[in-house]
Amino acid sequence: MNIGVRREIEPGERRVAATPESVVQLVATGLDVSVERGAGAAAGYPDGEYAKAGARLVDTLDIERCDVLTHVRPLDAGTVARLAPGTITVGLAAPAANLPVVAALRDAGITSFALELVPRLSRAQSMDALTSQALVAGYRCVLEAAMRLPRFFPLYMTAAGTIPPARVLVLGAGVAGLQAIATAKRLGARVSAYDVRAASADEVASMGATFISLDVDTADGAGGYATELAEDRAARQRELLRPHIEAADVVITTAAIPGKPAPRLVGSDMLRGMRSGSVVIDLAAESGGNVEGSVPGSDIPIPLDGDRGTITLVGMKDVASAMPYDASRLYAKNVSNLLALMTVDGEVVPDFTDEVVGGACLTHDGIVTHQPTLEAMSPSAGTLETGLLR
Amino acid sequence: MNIGVRREIEPGERRVAATPESVVQLVATGLDVSVERGAGAAAGYPDGEYAKAGARLVDTLDIERCDVLTHVRPLDAGTVARLAPGTITVGLAAPAANLPVVAALRDAGITSFALELVPRLSRAQSMDALTSQALVAGYRCVLEAAMRLPRFFPLYMTAAGTIPPARVLVLGAGVAGLQAIATAKRLGARVSAYDVRAASADEVASMGATFISLDVDTADGAGGYATELAEDRAARQRELLRPHIEAADVVITTAAIPGKPAPRLVGSDMLRGMRSGSVVIDLAAESGGNVEGSVPGSDIPIPLDGDRGTITLVGMKDVASAMPYDASRLYAKNVSNLLALMTVDGEVVPDFTDEVVGGACLTHDGIVTHQPTLEAMSPSAGTLETGLLR
Repeated sequence: MNIGVRREIEPGERRVAATPESVVQLVATGLDVSVERGAGAAAGYPDGEYAKAGARLVDTLDIERCDVLTHVRPLDAGTVARLAPGTITVGLAAPAANLPVVAALRDAGITSFALELVPRLSRAQSMDALTSQALVAGYRCVLEAAMRLPRFFPLYMTAAGTIPPARVLVLGAGVAGLQAIATAKRLGARVSAYDVRAASADEVASMGATFISLDVDTADGAGGYATELAEDRAARQRELLRPHIEAADVVITTAAIPGKPAPRLVGSDMLRGMRSGSVVIDLAAESGGNVEGSVPGSDIPIPLDGDRGTITLVGMKDVASAMPYDASRLYAKNVSNLLALMTVDGEVVPDFTDEVVGGACLTHDGIVTHQPTLEAMSPSAGTLETGLLR
Repeated sequence: MNIGVRREIEPGERRVAATPESVVQLVATGLDVSVERGAGAAAGYPDGEYAKAGARLVDTLDIERCDVLTHVRPLDAGTVARLAPGTITVGLAAPAANLPVVAALRDAGITSFALELVPRLSRAQSMDALTSQALVAGYRCVLEAAMRLPRFFPLYMTAAGTIPPARVLVLGAGVAGLQAIATAKRLGARVSAYDVRAASADEVASMGATFISLDVDTADGAGGYATELAEDRAARQRELLRPHIEAADVVITTAAIPGKPAPRLVGSDMLRGMRSGSVVIDLAAESGGNVEGSVPGSDIPIPLDGDRGTITLVGMKDVASAMPYDASRLYAKNVSNLLALMTVDGEVVPDFTDEVVGGACLTHDGIVTHQPTLEAMSPSAGTLETGLLR
């Protein structure tokens, strides 16, 4: 069967769905791999290395004839219209934000796998692109903060005096948050963190950071994710966070609730009591923002109370794509591992009774197989049993 | 006596010669401090904090009436023309690059102290601005590299495979180079380093990096600085460095020879064998460049041999100014410590017989007191005894 690897078409996207390393794996399972010339160029993988790994290089991928199309960004309707019925697609799909494309995939009879839907099981970890890309994002956002902070992260004891370490506050301690904690610790900052989930305190402490306990109920959802707080509790949470934010040189927010807009953890009034030069990084800016006023891809100066200067509010955008070599390396392995799970004798034959395969499937044979997406698409489906919140 | 602290006038300069903390020290020694409004704004020190520290805020500094003028960047001729005879100035002077200004300082009867000239003695360490600003530069250039590298610095062992640590090569292991080594190690990179000075091997090893021994003679100069290599040895050094550069993901060059252009350590042909996406940071770009083709303040893509993509050659510029809060904090302490050494009963009265005070003096009472600068200014002075190379 023929696996297609395309040049991503979204402007600014530098990742690629296969690397020479993942091509070797795909070829070893008996698949033919076609790579569009230049597909890996922006990520640092030259065409020659794909050829050496056993891929066929093509000037333009013949999307109509791919048995399997791999991709990074969610497909657009134009691409879906070119796929033959029965084609398999594997990549990020962001179904909640792309319902018309999901409908197109369904109507075109595509068997689409959305990497976001890979269940959080230990045997599926190697296919979990949310985790692999969050690892990149968590590391990256600390570099972004350190670059903008007019101060050092580490403690320095010099002949001209002692410089105290920067104080970094991480809100949301999922994969990205824990990685941000680890990276800020590496760089020598004093790190504290908060999360609404009960299990977070131990995880944060195990990274060497101080866990902030607020007098707010915990909110644990399915699959280790957080659930939404009621507004009165969210307001109380913000009020209790205020002194911690004002004491920080860097605040990094990473809170996400699957299928919902990002929770508003920080109001703009909470920023105006910070110290001049401080930096606030909103990793959730693209999904609604944890911080009031953040704009994806923009640095916004926020004036402080009392004419004390400004802080910088940074809305992150395309974070994983900013480190495309390693982000692609992990992502491509996620893709090839999922394909390997479905490949028998050189044919990709999904066994939908497999919890991982069935769980990751978004559309198949003219139906939307992911229950929450199906419900979101059909208002009348509100009476159906609700699937797991993902 | 009145100490003036000005807003720096050089575009892009964000540092300031006094901080609220250093003002406290100056006031405690009996000096009056006038701070131009907004002088610390870009560095993150609001006017109000200077006032609290005991400074007088002025809309425009009355340069003609300052007893002592403190500054960061070398003074320009226009400012010097406004100073009253006998005024004391303290700041960076870059005399070798600013001979006309030195002549103006001499002719105006200014007692100027150049922080670059502070002797490398242990009791003068707290006044050594080259060291304090190199600390900032060394830390900063690693962040600049990490931001541009499409890969992680640390080793990661993930469910989707192991990512090896980035390989960082530091050329030149002075204060900035050692700080770059330390910061790259903190971030988890595998670090190696090279320097022509004999003492470097132990210093590099003590930071946890691998010292690269090349079969080239060492070149130690006065004050712990390096001296220039003869061209045949420099060529051999480049040839021996080539495989180390090609094996690196990040190369950081920090080599400087006092009073001379930066040594050329890396030819552009040596870059074309690197791997796609690699990053080369030339910290010496402003003083001639360690790397052929580097341009201060620019990122230059260098195409690799064999159509294998590009690397990025980064010429650094105004590095310390990019972290103005802590850079100013250290710099201001260097300035106030030198002033404290010269202050008796609230009067700045330099004792030129003090090795530190005399050494740091550039001009006094109508003469250029720094011998190498004097020689550079007067071609006929070639017959005078040569001062220490600084």
